[in-house]
Amino acid sequence: MSIKTIERKVLQKNDEVAGDNRRFFKEKGILSLNLVSSPGSGKTSLLERTLEKLKGRIKTAVVIGDVQTDLDARRLESSGVPVIQLVTNGACHLEAPLVRDALADIQPDQTELLFIENVGNLVCPAGFDLGEDMKVVIASTTEGDDKPLKYPAMFRNAKVLVINKTDLVPYVNCDLNELRNNALRINPSLTIFETSCTNGDGLDQWCDWLTKQVRK
Amino acid sequence: MSIKTIERKVLQKNDEVAGDNRRFFKEKGILSLNLVSSPGSGKTSLLERTLEKLKGRIKTAVVIGDVQTDLDARRLESSGVPVIQLVTNGACHLEAPLVRDALADIQPDQTELLFIENVGNLVCPAGFDLGEDMKVVIASTTEGDDKPLKYPAMFRNAKVLVINKTDLVPYVNCDLNELRNNALRINPSLTIFETSCTNGDGLDQWCDWLTKQVRK
Repeated sequence: MSIKTIERKVLQKNDEVAGDNRRFFKEKGILSLNLVSSPGSGKTSLLERTLEKLKGRIKTAVVIGDVQTDLDARRLESSGVPVIQLVTNGACHLEAPLVRDALADIQPDQTELLFIENVGNLVCPAGFDLGEDMKVVIASTTEGDDKPLKYPAMFRNAKVLVINKTDLVPYVNCDLNELRNNALRINPSLTIFETSCTNGDGLDQWCDWLTKQVRK
Repeated sequence: MSIKTIERKVLQKNDEVAGDNRRFFKEKGILSLNLVSSPGSGKTSLLERTLEKLKGRIKTAVVIGDVQTDLDARRLESSGVPVIQLVTNGACHLEAPLVRDALADIQPDQTELLFIENVGNLVCPAGFDLGEDMKVVIASTTEGDDKPLKYPAMFRNAKVLVINKTDLVPYVNCDLNELRNNALRINPSLTIFETSCTNGDGLDQWCDWLTKQVRK
């Protein structure tokens, strides 16, 4: 038996459960976003600021995947939004069955928008469908402008790119135009936002867009 | 047949070849470093500056792993040091057989120090021995100070931590003491350097240490 066969079986099982998750989201009218990025791109900070801004506008819940620790969940607890922490115990990405387990803990009638914060990893989560409506890739300016070319699968599979930490552009070697162009070369239909969780730039546009997606 | 068995077989094969690589390095007197980090931590910039400083002091060569593109190899070409690019075609980490293939292209009598730049990924490369003398984990200050706790395997398996982008500390939410302490909680025997490839801070200490390791 070749490894490929095994991998295909694992993916098949994953995709079956992802299909179940997708049906669940559709039936319950929940918009689900799979947030993917490198470690340290600011996913959790972006979530903190986003939950704050969406408070009273949209009913949200968060599922957070981490290799180890519940640090991120504890950071988000103060938002007052239901937060479910998944610990992968070393695994480098979330898979659909783990997300399905988390869904048992959310209240569907109290949830219009579900954020699934994946493990910080710009490679592996690209290949795993969780049943989400879309992948949102977060790339911080501190990572440089070449990441879409070097990690194309993630940018190809995402519908949205959030370029985060724009306040640091003056101090780092990152050309925003180049970053945008590189991302659009890989995936011309990407919707792109530019945000800073430090000075708040771009967060309103991002949250307005999220609100529109939920109300669609 | 369970997935675990398959994984063990893959690792066994990897570890066998890693053993061959290790013997090769020992016989030829080559110090080999496996550089691991998140995408965008500045591995390639650190290498550029390091190769510059070691020029004329130590004979070096570089093997670079990327999911896609030869951007990094092209960046390092101007250093005048032999550079071999490995493209993993989507795989999230380097494995020992791929490194063995690269070793056929280096000149052992012209190499005292070999840098193996792994794929940008703070999870998966931790589990794969390439036969290197040590793993060096690079963490940039822009990633925050909690990464050792969230990605412990990488910090546990490394002998050296390079905290990079120290020039950005004033602009980001990263407490250097906290980062150091978190790393040492996971791995008390880590040797830690602090560098900035922008203002050059700490590069001399890092390069002096490398020189001493080679001359040992």
